[in-house]
Amino acid sequence: MRTQVVIIGGGPSGLLLGQLLYTKGIDTVVLERQTRAHVLGRIRAGVLEQGMVGLMAKAGIDARMKAEGHPHHGTLISYNDTLFRIDFKAHTGTQVMVYGQTEVTRDLYDARDAAGCRTAFEVEAVTIHDADRDRPYVTYRADGKTQRIDCDFIAGCDGFHGVSRAAIPETVRSEYEKIYPFGWLGILSETPPVADELIYANSDRGFALCSMRNPHLSRYYIQCSMADKPEDWSDDAFWTELKRRIPARYADSLVTGPSIEKSIAPLRSFVTEPMRWGRLFLCGDAAHIVPPTGAKGLNTAASDVHYLFEGLSRYYADGDDEGLRQYSEKALARVWKTERFSWWFSSIMHRFPDQSNFDLRMQHAELEFLRTNAAAQKAMAENYVGLPY
Amino acid sequence: MRTQVVIIGGGPSGLLLGQLLYTKGIDTVVLERQTRAHVLGRIRAGVLEQGMVGLMAKAGIDARMKAEGHPHHGTLISYNDTLFRIDFKAHTGTQVMVYGQTEVTRDLYDARDAAGCRTAFEVEAVTIHDADRDRPYVTYRADGKTQRIDCDFIAGCDGFHGVSRAAIPETVRSEYEKIYPFGWLGILSETPPVADELIYANSDRGFALCSMRNPHLSRYYIQCSMADKPEDWSDDAFWTELKRRIPARYADSLVTGPSIEKSIAPLRSFVTEPMRWGRLFLCGDAAHIVPPTGAKGLNTAASDVHYLFEGLSRYYADGDDEGLRQYSEKALARVWKTERFSWWFSSIMHRFPDQSNFDLRMQHAELEFLRTNAAAQKAMAENYVGLPY
Repeated sequence: MRTQVVIIGGGPSGLLLGQLLYTKGIDTVVLERQTRAHVLGRIRAGVLEQGMVGLMAKAGIDARMKAEGHPHHGTLISYNDTLFRIDFKAHTGTQVMVYGQTEVTRDLYDARDAAGCRTAFEVEAVTIHDADRDRPYVTYRADGKTQRIDCDFIAGCDGFHGVSRAAIPETVRSEYEKIYPFGWLGILSETPPVADELIYANSDRGFALCSMRNPHLSRYYIQCSMADKPEDWSDDAFWTELKRRIPARYADSLVTGPSIEKSIAPLRSFVTEPMRWGRLFLCGDAAHIVPPTGAKGLNTAASDVHYLFEGLSRYYADGDDEGLRQYSEKALARVWKTERFSWWFSSIMHRFPDQSNFDLRMQHAELEFLRTNAAAQKAMAENYVGLPY
Repeated sequence: MRTQVVIIGGGPSGLLLGQLLYTKGIDTVVLERQTRAHVLGRIRAGVLEQGMVGLMAKAGIDARMKAEGHPHHGTLISYNDTLFRIDFKAHTGTQVMVYGQTEVTRDLYDARDAAGCRTAFEVEAVTIHDADRDRPYVTYRADGKTQRIDCDFIAGCDGFHGVSRAAIPETVRSEYEKIYPFGWLGILSETPPVADELIYANSDRGFALCSMRNPHLSRYYIQCSMADKPEDWSDDAFWTELKRRIPARYADSLVTGPSIEKSIAPLRSFVTEPMRWGRLFLCGDAAHIVPPTGAKGLNTAASDVHYLFEGLSRYYADGDDEGLRQYSEKALARVWKTERFSWWFSSIMHRFPDQSNFDLRMQHAELEFLRTNAAAQKAMAENYVGLPY
């Protein structure tokens, strides 16, 4: 088998890259370790930057997002009962789009099917060969047989635990990591969201986030110990704790109901450098992880996809490999900015076990400065809606 | 003896308060543990915020500062060989004044002499009595005799190690502290400054600061270990290390010469709450310490002096004690903002012994964001020139 670009990983970043390349007539094969149902069953974030919205338009997969998504012109931030709003529209002239990552992925699969592009599910033993040579290829097992795809390039979109990053020799890689000493316990519930906009809440009891997918589907999170298990938390216990962490006016009007999903996610900052090795290009979680505060995971993957798409388009249009050679540097420059924002926003919103009372006051002072200083709000808003590519 | 306000501490904050009260006809006695020569021999920072400049005008002691001070409309920041400028004037419409704290103190003593206000030097065993009652008084020993001054109020301007804060019962006080794991080795030298504006330098070898008093007197600092002694550092060793930490273009043009002062200062963040106990009011270092990065020490003391002067003026003008009752809350609100700025600026400019490679990249990303984002620069500039009282 042969294709121009093998895309390892059938999540939203791999699919988006595939769809963008399809618009330029560039052939791809997507290899996904799981079933399609499994991929579509994963609950992920749901806040899209303008850059991502623009890529979806460019890929021609934005119709449902435009019809069903919810533009948010600001966000609420609280610490204990003090509440303020960051006005994205006023500070940046733009907004974010609330539309679930699961829906993005569904739209991408529908488009890939319609385009007749090849996707292989439940592939095993995916192995990258000769990425540092002129004729790379990928092997994998499916239906009990070993398959080989020859290609020009490989896009590693297979996440933090995927094979792509590991295919780059350790001697070449530099890795940067911070593990946060807590997790997020999240639930999905078929209840109306407590507010029209997201509420990021810092409280004496820890962080909470009130998010949503649509007017009938809410997503709530509370900071928890990584020693906790989802089954340790009854729905009642979750709602009780959430109410203690958000301003009273919202706690009083919160509509509760049974959870339809409940899980605990760790928080991690991670970056590997470089993001390119020969003809292998890492995209998204394969190269970097951000803690979820500020919803930068998919959006940062999208910025990688943008740079890689630009590089590949240029290469296939006129043989100019400048964009591909600059891919790692350009992608990483933006990645580090997003890592900074996600780290900073996480740092000011959570309780850390080793915080001194001085550290707590600095956190409070950061929030107070953000509440009262227009320039600080503008800097925050610019990051939240997404820095330019 | 009797006075209206006993001011404990004859440094710049106590003297400034005394001079401001003098303009309203309010009588003060200043008690100073050291000799005047000792106080005037202390080398301190030399960057004045607009608020401090305004208070000096109000106190009528700004003639020499206006004639000899150097307005700075921006500052330079570097990390390794990357250099950028924060334009105070463009972002805030105002600037800072470079004029040594030692000169401010000299001007204040000259004014106090001219006004005929009482100052007692070399006083020992200063003790505050009945600060929580209606008739407080202060005792001290001078010339072998115990003296007593009855007063309405006591201003504790006697610094971190003074008796004033300790006079507030521990059960009343909450204290917040961070000790930074390094010091600043500073020298004064009769050489022309390497640049027209200050250079705050982060380098792989640690922090450095190029500052100045005037076109013929430079003040330079390098981050050092607190285990170091000034005598461990020859002038040559200092200059060699400084040159390694600043951008090459400045290292090449640096004019070196013999140091006329060399000392090591620790870095500390500290706040005590409340700043008022009965009729005792803490001002400046007696209540809070900032690390020197950003030159907020004297300037934060000045903001306390402003609030206390307003409160005392109002009280003596018409018996209204509202300003005095609100003193602690108002002063602390601004103190915490300044603590945040000094902590943040220190955090991004120094090397910390326990920094991971991720932490280092976050520091780099903060500097890169500051270099490239106008809103971040504006927030920084607003803090540097001084937030409004």
